[in-house]
Amino acid sequence: MLLRNAWYVAAWSSEIPVDELLARTILNVPVALWRDSSGKVVAFEDRCCHRGAPLSKGRLEGDQLRCMYHGLLFDTTGRCVEIPGQERIPPQAKVRTFPVVEKHKWIWIWMGDASLADPSQIPDTHWLDDPEWRSLEGYTYYTTNYLLIADNLLDLAHLPYVHPNTLGGDEAYAACIPQVEKLENGVRVTRWGEGIKPAPFVQKIKNYPGPVDRWNIYDFVLPSIFLMDSGMQPSGHNAKAGDRVNAAEFRSTQALTPETDESTHYFFSQPHNFAIDDPEVTQAIHNQVVTAFQEDSDMIHAQDRMLKLTSDFKMIPIGADAALSYFRWLVANAYKAEQAISNPVKIQEV
Amino acid sequence: MLLRNAWYVAAWSSEIPVDELLARTILNVPVALWRDSSGKVVAFEDRCCHRGAPLSKGRLEGDQLRCMYHGLLFDTTGRCVEIPGQERIPPQAKVRTFPVVEKHKWIWIWMGDASLADPSQIPDTHWLDDPEWRSLEGYTYYTTNYLLIADNLLDLAHLPYVHPNTLGGDEAYAACIPQVEKLENGVRVTRWGEGIKPAPFVQKIKNYPGPVDRWNIYDFVLPSIFLMDSGMQPSGHNAKAGDRVNAAEFRSTQALTPETDESTHYFFSQPHNFAIDDPEVTQAIHNQVVTAFQEDSDMIHAQDRMLKLTSDFKMIPIGADAALSYFRWLVANAYKAEQAISNPVKIQEV
Amino acid sequence: MLLRNAWYVAAWSSEIPVDELLARTILNVPVALWRDSSGKVVAFEDRCCHRGAPLSKGRLEGDQLRCMYHGLLFDTTGRCVEIPGQERIPPQAKVRTFPVVEKHKWIWIWMGDASLADPSQIPDTHWLDDPEWRSLEGYTYYTTNYLLIADNLLDLAHLPYVHPNTLGGDEAYAACIPQVEKLENGVRVTRWGEGIKPAPFVQKIKNYPGPVDRWNIYDFVLPSIFLMDSGMQPSGHNAKAGDRVNAAEFRSTQALTPETDESTHYFFSQPHNFAIDDPEVTQAIHNQVVTAFQEDSDMIHAQDRMLKLTSDFKMIPIGADAALSYFRWLVANAYKAEQAISNPVKIQEV
Repeated sequence: MLLRNAWYVAAWSSEIPVDELLARTILNVPVALWRDSSGKVVAFEDRCCHRGAPLSKGRLEGDQLRCMYHGLLFDTTGRCVEIPGQERIPPQAKVRTFPVVEKHKWIWIWMGDASLADPSQIPDTHWLDDPEWRSLEGYTYYTTNYLLIADNLLDLAHLPYVHPNTLGGDEAYAACIPQVEKLENGVRVTRWGEGIKPAPFVQKIKNYPGPVDRWNIYDFVLPSIFLMDSGMQPSGHNAKAGDRVNAAEFRSTQALTPETDESTHYFFSQPHNFAIDDPEVTQAIHNQVVTAFQEDSDMIHAQDRMLKLTSDFKMIPIGADAALSYFRWLVANAYKAEQAISNPVKIQEV
Repeated sequence: MLLRNAWYVAAWSSEIPVDELLARTILNVPVALWRDSSGKVVAFEDRCCHRGAPLSKGRLEGDQLRCMYHGLLFDTTGRCVEIPGQERIPPQAKVRTFPVVEKHKWIWIWMGDASLADPSQIPDTHWLDDPEWRSLEGYTYYTTNYLLIADNLLDLAHLPYVHPNTLGGDEAYAACIPQVEKLENGVRVTRWGEGIKPAPFVQKIKNYPGPVDRWNIYDFVLPSIFLMDSGMQPSGHNAKAGDRVNAAEFRSTQALTPETDESTHYFFSQPHNFAIDDPEVTQAIHNQVVTAFQEDSDMIHAQDRMLKLTSDFKMIPIGADAALSYFRWLVANAYKAEQAISNPVKIQEV
Repeated sequence: MLLRNAWYVAAWSSEIPVDELLARTILNVPVALWRDSSGKVVAFEDRCCHRGAPLSKGRLEGDQLRCMYHGLLFDTTGRCVEIPGQERIPPQAKVRTFPVVEKHKWIWIWMGDASLADPSQIPDTHWLDDPEWRSLEGYTYYTTNYLLIADNLLDLAHLPYVHPNTLGGDEAYAACIPQVEKLENGVRVTRWGEGIKPAPFVQKIKNYPGPVDRWNIYDFVLPSIFLMDSGMQPSGHNAKAGDRVNAAEFRSTQALTPETDESTHYFFSQPHNFAIDDPEVTQAIHNQVVTAFQEDSDMIHAQDRMLKLTSDFKMIPIGADAALSYFRWLVANAYKAEQAISNPVKIQEV
């Protein structure tokens, strides 16, 4: 159930230096990413139109890319402009290209119908390169379907259990009931814990002397983008009303991009707006998040193995599933709509 | 063709220490094994009823087990007794449990219809902890169906060929025709060799000066349990009539437990009743059996690869196949009976 | 689409020393190769007719081979001549054998209908052991279908792109249009480049001071045998008319043998007829070919991964595909003819 008409994160900008090719499979399609002479990112289907050889093993020649199997040469629009030993270039000799937008350090790609690609739909992630925020670039890889990871992000009751020594901490936070709002293209979740112990990854930096108020307020939007205002601060100030005092604030920014039906690229970052001139703090926060995401990965891959052993396992829903249930319903609906467009049912005449 | 209504060995007792969880898949079902505060072994399906996360990665809290994904807590009956952030526990929030019996160092489990689980059907393996016998605990793992291993155990003509330097020895023993008796739930095989060379693994300990009489008398019973009286002693005494003089006697005890259709847990032990106060003898016997079982494993895995290459290979039966043919027939019959019970054919009304 | 009624290379002669067994799967069938006491090669299906155990793990006893699972003994015709513990040998107790011919260091095998095996159809490869030529024995292994490798050999436009530092060199050679002749059982390709830079692997030995004329003239015949007259010499002599002056001449001899539908044995050699008394030259040429074949392997395995990602990729033919298109058509036709013979359509009566 992979949505095609959507913007996905294909790469960090830094993964595509000038004069280098990046090979990455997205939604089961191999893609070769490179920059033309102006620095603009180009995305080709990573199969030469001749015999399917990977163009990511090709040679960049200015604004052109040469397949290094039999020497066909392509321009940035994917049109073949040279075939060794042949004058006439057949018009169908083209490789498929994909719309690409580079914004705030992320390369966004549109794998579906190019005529529907509207860059204004790309979510705002300006924290990734805003001078008031600091973060490092994270990437991890799953051999599971992306929805199992979405489930995880949509129920943060898991924080104290999966991440007791990093993002979690006080088990009381799991029992704080979040508010769930349905958005047209996603879901907004708001979780508040008041007068609880701070999360270990923050406490290592802030060393709060007493209890804190903690919040996780995030939108999870189609196809699978996670944007969160989170943080904690000493209890006793009016955090809920926006009065942030000695707070540790974050704008966690995450994107799941299906590689195949059963594997996922996971891009993440944890921008913070305090101690922004101390790279050690930025590195320490990043390291804790990397450790925590490995904890998630261990759990989700194990869950995936359990689910795949037999097909008859039935999940029992609980109250905490509200957000993930709604999001899966949104995905199923969007998928159905895409299928209806690409395979229209013929209306029978009477 | 995996029988469900049967007792299988799930583990050695020592594999489940207090305060630890053992994950083991049996008949395609993941199982989490642990001990309650009284030491009694509990077997849960290793999938939290909520989202299928492995309970074997959970936390033991006295007589309760907590899933460490979202914090659900279960009692020893599998009933959910706590959901963080939720007052009402839905009655269907339960994990499946399996009947378990611990006996003579083995943990037996019943994966089928619990109402049919009768502990009196568990075969006698008291040699495993009888003070008159000594042995060590063996385990190995196959990536083949269990019946290929059963075939091996049901035709000991393979001993001199597969195990020339351990269990085998004299090739004349392969030509000794065994007596095969059909049992209701298995088969009894009796093989005698008289005036032959002793098996190397015994000769290393006993150093018999001349020829021996050798016997392998065993029951192989459903689902796949192997219980053998075997040994050898100098020729010239009436071994066949039970007159055992300077004998090396063993009670080989083995159990095959399908992990999946194409993988098998193999529990084994080689109790002996001589030199029982000499741990070096016990260790030497065990080491020889471990070496020999690796020889079987090499052959059976190779055979499995050969059989899987194409589906059109036809086996040619020989006389030595009597026991294995009967056992496979028993398995097929028992399987058909199980299927009939779980999928009863409706009687058509006239 | 594996042709069965054809001669395939099963092994280099040197791979089957006296008293050793070689296991090799060909066209999905496991084969055990060995020599009888006269040195003649025998090819058995590598599955004992009893339970399918690999005979390649058996024991050679002069002109007989014993299965080391249960001790059955077979003569060179595949007939079982001994079953331990059993007097009567069932007539169907036979392992399948395959026609084998050893010629010029190669062991040829016929996996199809033995009555059709005609050794006169084996192509001439006498360069492999002709005293006027020198070469070493090459082998590599692909996890792809053999036709992707045949494609590669049938379009040498790839030489400058895949092999810039070994077999390739001047990109002008890719644009030299080859002559393609249809043969009854294959295709003949003739490619000439005149006044071009020499290929690096030759230049390292010959150190030609100026431009060369280069030729690749080869037959690629069913099922998948590649026989080539290739070389280069200083321009200015009449190479095309056969006037070879200071030439570096080769008789590249290659054979693709499908192991399974998705894996291939690749036997190759690069005989040369100059500097034949200098083993270092022979070794240097061989090393360059080995390096180049690894370059092909990297490209073809990558192409294979690209093609397998999705099934909807459509190849766009170009002029250079003439030879490979014809060869694939020949294979498809031969395959259809084989299927018609083994599955004859019944003629309906009117």
